[in-house]
Amino acid sequence: MTQVDILLHNAHVLTMDETLTQYNRGAVAIHGDSIVAVGPEDKIEKEYSGKETIDCKGKILMPGLINAHTHAPMTLLRGIADDLRLDVWLQGYMFPVERQFASPESVWLGTSIACAELIKSGVTTFNDMYYFEDDVATAAANAGMRAVCGQSILKFPTPDAASYEDAMDRARDYIKKWKGHPLIVPAIAPHAPYTTTEGILRETADLAKEFDVPLHIHLSETSFEVDNMRNEQGMPVIPYVKKQGLFEAKVIAAHCVHIDTGEIRTLQHAGAGVSHNPSSNLKLASGFAPVTKMLEVGLNVGIGTDGPASNNDLDMFEEVRLAALIAKAVTNDPTSLPAPQALLMATRLGAQALHIGHLTGSLTPNRRADLILVDLSPVHNSPSFRRSADNAYAQIVYASKSTDVTDAMINGKWVMRERRLLTVQEDELLAQAADLAKQIDSFLIEREQSVLSKLIALGGSMEEESFEVQVKVKIADPDRVIRELMRNEIDILYERHYKQHDVYFIFDDETQGRLRYREDDFIEQGNLTTTRARLTLLGQKREGKFEHEVLLSRSRYLAPATNSLRFYREYFKPKTEIPVEKDRLRWFIKYKDTEFYVNLDHMTTPALGHFLEVKSRTWSRKDAKNKADLLGELLKLLGAADANAAAQDYIDFVYEE
Amino acid sequence: MTQVDILLHNAHVLTMDETLTQYNRGAVAIHGDSIVAVGPEDKIEKEYSGKETIDCKGKILMPGLINAHTHAPMTLLRGIADDLRLDVWLQGYMFPVERQFASPESVWLGTSIACAELIKSGVTTFNDMYYFEDDVATAAANAGMRAVCGQSILKFPTPDAASYEDAMDRARDYIKKWKGHPLIVPAIAPHAPYTTTEGILRETADLAKEFDVPLHIHLSETSFEVDNMRNEQGMPVIPYVKKQGLFEAKVIAAHCVHIDTGEIRTLQHAGAGVSHNPSSNLKLASGFAPVTKMLEVGLNVGIGTDGPASNNDLDMFEEVRLAALIAKAVTNDPTSLPAPQALLMATRLGAQALHIGHLTGSLTPNRRADLILVDLSPVHNSPSFRRSADNAYAQIVYASKSTDVTDAMINGKWVMRERRLLTVQEDELLAQAADLAKQIDSFLIEREQSVLSKLIALGGSMEEESFEVQVKVKIADPDRVIRELMRNEIDILYERHYKQHDVYFIFDDETQGRLRYREDDFIEQGNLTTTRARLTLLGQKREGKFEHEVLLSRSRYLAPATNSLRFYREYFKPKTEIPVEKDRLRWFIKYKDTEFYVNLDHMTTPALGHFLEVKSRTWSRKDAKNKADLLGELLKLLGAADANAAAQDYIDFVYEE
Repeated sequence: MTQVDILLHNAHVLTMDETLTQYNRGAVAIHGDSIVAVGPEDKIEKEYSGKETIDCKGKILMPGLINAHTHAPMTLLRGIADDLRLDVWLQGYMFPVERQFASPESVWLGTSIACAELIKSGVTTFNDMYYFEDDVATAAANAGMRAVCGQSILKFPTPDAASYEDAMDRARDYIKKWKGHPLIVPAIAPHAPYTTTEGILRETADLAKEFDVPLHIHLSETSFEVDNMRNEQGMPVIPYVKKQGLFEAKVIAAHCVHIDTGEIRTLQHAGAGVSHNPSSNLKLASGFAPVTKMLEVGLNVGIGTDGPASNNDLDMFEEVRLAALIAKAVTNDPTSLPAPQALLMATRLGAQALHIGHLTGSLTPNRRADLILVDLSPVHNSPSFRRSADNAYAQIVYASKSTDVTDAMINGKWVMRERRLLTVQEDELLAQAADLAKQIDSFLIEREQSVLSKLIALGGSMEEESFEVQVKVKIADPDRVIRELMRNEIDILYERHYKQHDVYFIFDDETQGRLRYREDDFIEQGNLTTTRARLTLLGQKREGKFEHEVLLSRSRYLAPATNSLRFYREYFKPKTEIPVEKDRLRWFIKYKDTEFYVNLDHMTTPALGHFLEVKSRTWSRKDAKNKADLLGELLKLLGAADANAAAQDYIDFVYEE
Repeated sequence: MTQVDILLHNAHVLTMDETLTQYNRGAVAIHGDSIVAVGPEDKIEKEYSGKETIDCKGKILMPGLINAHTHAPMTLLRGIADDLRLDVWLQGYMFPVERQFASPESVWLGTSIACAELIKSGVTTFNDMYYFEDDVATAAANAGMRAVCGQSILKFPTPDAASYEDAMDRARDYIKKWKGHPLIVPAIAPHAPYTTTEGILRETADLAKEFDVPLHIHLSETSFEVDNMRNEQGMPVIPYVKKQGLFEAKVIAAHCVHIDTGEIRTLQHAGAGVSHNPSSNLKLASGFAPVTKMLEVGLNVGIGTDGPASNNDLDMFEEVRLAALIAKAVTNDPTSLPAPQALLMATRLGAQALHIGHLTGSLTPNRRADLILVDLSPVHNSPSFRRSADNAYAQIVYASKSTDVTDAMINGKWVMRERRLLTVQEDELLAQAADLAKQIDSFLIEREQSVLSKLIALGGSMEEESFEVQVKVKIADPDRVIRELMRNEIDILYERHYKQHDVYFIFDDETQGRLRYREDDFIEQGNLTTTRARLTLLGQKREGKFEHEVLLSRSRYLAPATNSLRFYREYFKPKTEIPVEKDRLRWFIKYKDTEFYVNLDHMTTPALGHFLEVKSRTWSRKDAKNKADLLGELLKLLGAADANAAAQDYIDFVYEE
């Protein structure tokens, strides 16, 4: 008779081992942090006596669930913005709010709340990727949770690193600090191929190898990502990262929605783990991952919730059910991904995907004691059929709820008994989160009040506001202007030809100004060469007016438009959109030692005919007055002095309030 | 100051009215069974005083959810058989168990349990279709639930009606009894076009019109159903039922997965309601319903769980979330079916789909007081952002759980307070269900032990077991047999030519016998005319042996094979399958006043050459002995007396244990 610390008996044990052994009724002997024995109750009780013996009252006793991909601190951003397209959600809301609010303290808070939610829903291990990962790890360790914690590396500045070199230094220190911890497995997390560089992928793989830690990355989440990779690199995502040596490390690949059979085999040969994240893939319309194919090939596919801001919770019971349901509809086969296999993905396969299958994921001697009790007595689980070995799995996958988890043990220590959390002070944390939510609400409300502040919130390079004087006249004979420009008084510095496609956003509140999205198609010898997109916030009113209808105008914001027109439309929600298109010949000239732009425009949408526009940057009212006089002279020289000056921008021909 | 029975205050009220008005903080005044006023707390409290005033403690106060399609009594069959194809699940498990166990008592029990589960998950109204619907209605009314209860009509015998005429009589009495009840709306439920007839559809529509009650039906659930309808009727399902006058009634159409834009418009013009059942459609791999298109056209689309045996629960919170998530992935647009619209489907639109929008579905004066309180304080719902009007809907749809519903009121009466059920004795019912589950387990275990009992469980027409004497010889010259059959001693009654495709199922337990699935392709003048499929359970061993290798054999079961080979494969799970194919000329002859079958077989799979088989039905050992002698004579007459008789069935040439 061997004495152990804890003996759990009177349980229906689902071991989730290689042969999916069940013991009903069964028992588990635990000593220290590990499982010593699992088997039929009578056999175990003959061989082991527990210092403490716990009656499981016929509940399901099974391995704790593995959440194979999440961003735990984002509990703080849960429900902040939903039903949006990925770019609007990410660049319009997540990134600006993270830039403002992500800090070691908030990351610790968000992770602690995540741990409360995870434990309450039967998760004992999670795989994370975020900023300030040292604080994620600290919070997880405090909560007594097992976690693979990946420090993010991006090519852009992030809340925790001004440059990727800083991020790499931070990651190295972080990994050194946590390597060998009984609960935390430190990892490196190059965010995704499209947010890193070839160099970053190589360096992170090297660091992962050096310390023998996992490398956690988003791969092939959207078809957009894959299409871009094909266009830029001539190959899909998996071969690209393979080329950078990524698979020399122990890779955990999140999503893998858009991968083909060859790529699945590559992942399998590389021993990479995959996290399937069905809620996130549906909610962000990323697509349907080929999960059944991956499993057929023998890939270790776990299930993840993704971050709670795109799910919007950390409920693995929902996620497992969804994985099982979706696979059937996608393969048109209701026998696909049956309940036992779905639950396996959330336990042993998940642990293997995280490269910690030797530690957790099944109730097997020598594995760590990471386990949960699930109560099948609530009405939504009743009745219990026991005709087939599959009945219990079907109950858990198709009927049970995370709230049926009553007890959870991690590394041999209880973290929840009878739904009472033992390691996390939930109420206190939620009060802090509520305070922070109010601050974030205020930040966003303030931002949303002005088009300018919404623009600024997008971040990225922005040019200073600028003033210019300009005059515009309708002309009948554009060829004459071209001839007159050859005059000796005028010095042509360069000449351009392009087609301009503008869309003006008009807002309910006219004082917000108008936002112009402009694409310039540059034409050389009749051919389109490059296209440039820019975003300009124009003041609603002219700042001043001089002789000859010369106007002083102000552009309050000018920046490259790195997102699509569709993005800006969904982000700014204008009342109206007005398209304006023209063919523009532009000359940059010097006249009397002053630089001017001369635009000869052929308006095509609306079809307004030809216009001559002359303008110059300015910085003071006195300078503006002088330039206004010169503009009058230029108009005369170009033979357009008699034309009617148009005191309007082109948009005003079209849009009348 | 008007006095009312109940004043609910300090709530975040989601009215789900036409303009999705919210009041935070708001109040609702209730008198008798109805809502008197809804509005901002300060305004309502100025105008109304409640005999009872209830502090909602900042919880969400919203209309109770509407489960737009279910089979409530099937809680009793939850988890009995999962991950199966629809036909195996339905005909292999549901129908046999229902034939055995569906009764007024079990239907009442299952419905009462369903009511407990529904109320606990915030549902105040459900739309049902089952047998013994009078007992469903009784159980629902006892539980204080609002329900549309549809008495099923099928062209087959059902647990509650030996014929459809009986079912119609039952339905008429049932509707008369319940019409006008404050909670129950009786309805008629022709099960589906493929389980009814044109006549049944017309009669049920007439009955529905006569009593002005809804007509509840499954429409276009699978592509198989639609393909069959196109083949048989030259049109898809919606035009077919329209042709039968179905839409003259108030139709509630469940599923509508495979319908085109024209059919959507037909439903809309007809004022039909639709129940979208995402879990069921995924789990049974039925497909993705075009929900966003239906909503765009203005159809009243509700959300249903379908029966708890195909879901496997009655959780509308899961169903709403799933509807919102799936729509995004299917349309490839994450802005599809946003949270407010999804919740609308589960409330007001659902009530409208059931043709009871004037009674329930929104918190509006004069509607019945059907409402719930939802607690957003648990960790998985936290924090609460309130920047946008959409935030609260997103919390409920994407993060909340059914277990967050704390209180429920139906028709002005509380049915749950602080998660304690007031109208249903849950524990007692669950104990009864557990007893029944044990009986069902035993029934299925017994059945599964024998191939014969599994066959019988399938039901349908079955022939008696039969004995026959037979002799089989390998021959070199088949033409000679044909010539010899012309002899005067032999009277040919008829002649047939067909190709026979057999598949033998071999089982682990040889004593179970062998199951033969046979398709006969009848050939006339060289052309295939009709095909017939039959299923025969053959005894493992011969029953006796006579001179000339004449054998006595027994077929234990013979029946038309109404399901596909694939169905039988998945239902019987044989160890091995052996295909046997032959070209058969068959003569039914009389020789010495005794009837015989003469088969001249050309074995193609396996390619064994030609065989002559002569056989006759028998009923006693003495008769068998006489016929064995005659068989010897016939062999001689047909010139095959010298051939080696094969004491084997064809299958034995192929399959050796």
